[in-house]
Amino acid sequence: MVVAGRTAAKAVTVVDEIRSLGHSAQALVGDASVEADAFRFLEVASKDRTLGFVLHNAGSNRRDSILELDKDDFEQLWREHCLGGFLIGREAARRMVPQGSGTIAFTGASGSLRGRAGFAAFAAAKAGLRAVAQSMAREFGPKGIHVAHVVIDGGIDGDRLVERVPNIREQRGPGGLLNIEAIAEAYWQLHVQHRSAWTHELDLRPWAEPF
Amino acid sequence: MVVAGRTAAKAVTVVDEIRSLGHSAQALVGDASVEADAFRFLEVASKDRTLGFVLHNAGSNRRDSILELDKDDFEQLWREHCLGGFLIGREAARRMVPQGSGTIAFTGASGSLRGRAGFAAFAAAKAGLRAVAQSMAREFGPKGIHVAHVVIDGGIDGDRLVERVPNIREQRGPGGLLNIEAIAEAYWQLHVQHRSAWTHELDLRPWAEPF
Amino acid sequence: MVVAGRTAAKAVTVVDEIRSLGHSAQALVGDASVEADAFRFLEVASKDRTLGFVLHNAGSNRRDSILELDKDDFEQLWREHCLGGFLIGREAARRMVPQGSGTIAFTGASGSLRGRAGFAAFAAAKAGLRAVAQSMAREFGPKGIHVAHVVIDGGIDGDRLVERVPNIREQRGPGGLLNIEAIAEAYWQLHVQHRSAWTHELDLRPWAEPF
Amino acid sequence: MVVAGRTAAKAVTVVDEIRSLGHSAQALVGDASVEADAFRFLEVASKDRTLGFVLHNAGSNRRDSILELDKDDFEQLWREHCLGGFLIGREAARRMVPQGSGTIAFTGASGSLRGRAGFAAFAAAKAGLRAVAQSMAREFGPKGIHVAHVVIDGGIDGDRLVERVPNIREQRGPGGLLNIEAIAEAYWQLHVQHRSAWTHELDLRPWAEPF
Repeated sequence: MVVAGRTAAKAVTVVDEIRSLGHSAQALVGDASVEADAFRFLEVASKDRTLGFVLHNAGSNRRDSILELDKDDFEQLWREHCLGGFLIGREAARRMVPQGSGTIAFTGASGSLRGRAGFAAFAAAKAGLRAVAQSMAREFGPKGIHVAHVVIDGGIDGDRLVERVPNIREQRGPGGLLNIEAIAEAYWQLHVQHRSAWTHELDLRPWAEPF
Repeated sequence: MVVAGRTAAKAVTVVDEIRSLGHSAQALVGDASVEADAFRFLEVASKDRTLGFVLHNAGSNRRDSILELDKDDFEQLWREHCLGGFLIGREAARRMVPQGSGTIAFTGASGSLRGRAGFAAFAAAKAGLRAVAQSMAREFGPKGIHVAHVVIDGGIDGDRLVERVPNIREQRGPGGLLNIEAIAEAYWQLHVQHRSAWTHELDLRPWAEPF
Repeated sequence: MVVAGRTAAKAVTVVDEIRSLGHSAQALVGDASVEADAFRFLEVASKDRTLGFVLHNAGSNRRDSILELDKDDFEQLWREHCLGGFLIGREAARRMVPQGSGTIAFTGASGSLRGRAGFAAFAAAKAGLRAVAQSMAREFGPKGIHVAHVVIDGGIDGDRLVERVPNIREQRGPGGLLNIEAIAEAYWQLHVQHRSAWTHELDLRPWAEPF
Repeated sequence: MVVAGRTAAKAVTVVDEIRSLGHSAQALVGDASVEADAFRFLEVASKDRTLGFVLHNAGSNRRDSILELDKDDFEQLWREHCLGGFLIGREAARRMVPQGSGTIAFTGASGSLRGRAGFAAFAAAKAGLRAVAQSMAREFGPKGIHVAHVVIDGGIDGDRLVERVPNIREQRGPGGLLNIEAIAEAYWQLHVQHRSAWTHELDLRPWAEPF
């Protein structure tokens, strides 16, 4: 398994955990929105093996009045979510189409579906990614590649959020933040779906989350 | 397990199959869009046990020019899909809310999302059902009830379609019709989702189906 | 012009106002969801003249927990919004298709697009109507009939709301409730659109209304 | 009036036509996706006058397999449609918010709503623009700025299309391509809407166009 990201420490932590469970894994450092890095990630991941499952999962967000939203910040979120997703998806598809199999998944958010006030940069990036995912699904489904888009609507029970809002778990109560293993399980279930009944899009949301 | 439907023979066939696998099951005959029947179905299903999973699954469709679409036919599809779904969902919720648990699922179609020419009656009924499912999810999620809507977009590999279009399997090729066990697996996966990451809506579609 | 509705007094008031402006108008009393009444409304409206513009505009709403939502109340809203809209639309189309011209418009609401908690009956009815409108647009557009669906998202500055919430105008401030003439203007603009650039759906919303 | 674009000749042609009707107009040359140009366009347009109506209208499209879609081409469409729209919208809003009035409109397409096979770059760019438009509408509506997104679904009866497909008018028949004046009329009607009944999104489509 290959775990790629911009921060070596994070990728290594995940790889260590996978190895501790007795599986092999490899950490790669780079930026998925840089074409050469996206190429390298998939080149390594597919070397001497079938490429089974590829996930693009970017999470940065920001809140600004549009009046103060900087051009570079607007562009940065697009690079991370939309351009990175496109490049990872394209590189994955280039290797999966010859195989005639594989799953490509993208992580979306409620911002994928609507642009709320204050979140123009994020929503533009995620809406763009969703369009890419749809276009890929329509092109590659008939070639045996399962392309899926997962709309995560809620806080994720992980280090990023908990460090930023220390008492968020108490605030939200039991099951109020998305459990990371539950998210992973949803991706896994997409991967093992029978090809006669593939899901392109699903949402994941804590039970008590308003929507 | 309770299997309810308008046709005794169909319900009994399903029940026999469940029993042959060593499980207990019971066939009920009635019309889910008749309030007393919906009540009875859920009353039996919940008697002396926790009500775990309830599915409303109606499939009738029709094609007409709106110019020739009869009022009674328009109404009939609404009764079957939308009113029946509402009554089954309400009766299920009335029993699940006191439990604080349970899954209620509805079967949708691509017509749930858009009204194509020729399918006004079906689309109106299925779009109405989808609205009911959303409204239920928003009301009952915070009470511990998982409400889901599954958009089935494609032909189902079952008796109804195969009898109507005998060579449909050959026409569509391998995996070209939705496998019934794959559909059932999708419902099952919804039922066992962790409550911190529930799906309200997903689509199911054969790999090569245009959309 | 024909003004039809269930309440004679309301229809007459509107007709009187139209006549006071020097136009001819006629009040009809009946229920658009009753087939014979829908037939009669359109028969009168098209007698000895081209049928130019037909609007179905129903406004009843209700708020209930689904647990307490009565089957008859659920059905009643469907009759008013969805069945009534279908029948009026069908009767209009039967007369407009031979002409090769005309506009059929339906009034929707934010409930047409999503089922909020507490509004299952309304949302199911309005979502169904929206599906009917789409299906009609796809069937009748190519026959020269313009079918439109207007999503009204906000309170309407009319007797119904003001009687129910007497200080609503002050609460919402200037332009905070939809002006009835502004709504009428939107319908009129739909009617006079060039057929090379028809709108099927638009939303109307007060400037400061959250959405 | 200010007409800005990347091609001087086109802008001048439009300006000449406006002047021939007795109005004053000014041509500006530049690239709306370059921050300094977007700034300059709006600075000139608002100099010594109220900024009434601003339209971002970009039309480039391309068709590729994702397997062969170049990173730079993917990025280029995003710059033109999404980044350019954001910058023009932001610069317009910076000048309109202090006024407390004005209309900002964006041109979308059916690709704004769904990613078809072969159109990933266009759909990603237009979906991103739509999210920006929604976010702007939600932020600036309550400040008196009307933000609208127009989904143009069909071929436009203009030089670009007619030069590329010489017999397209005959192919599509009367009213089969969107008339440019009809499109302009739709934007105008958005601009003059009463603020109690503003439209955020509408579609424009030739009468016989399938959708």
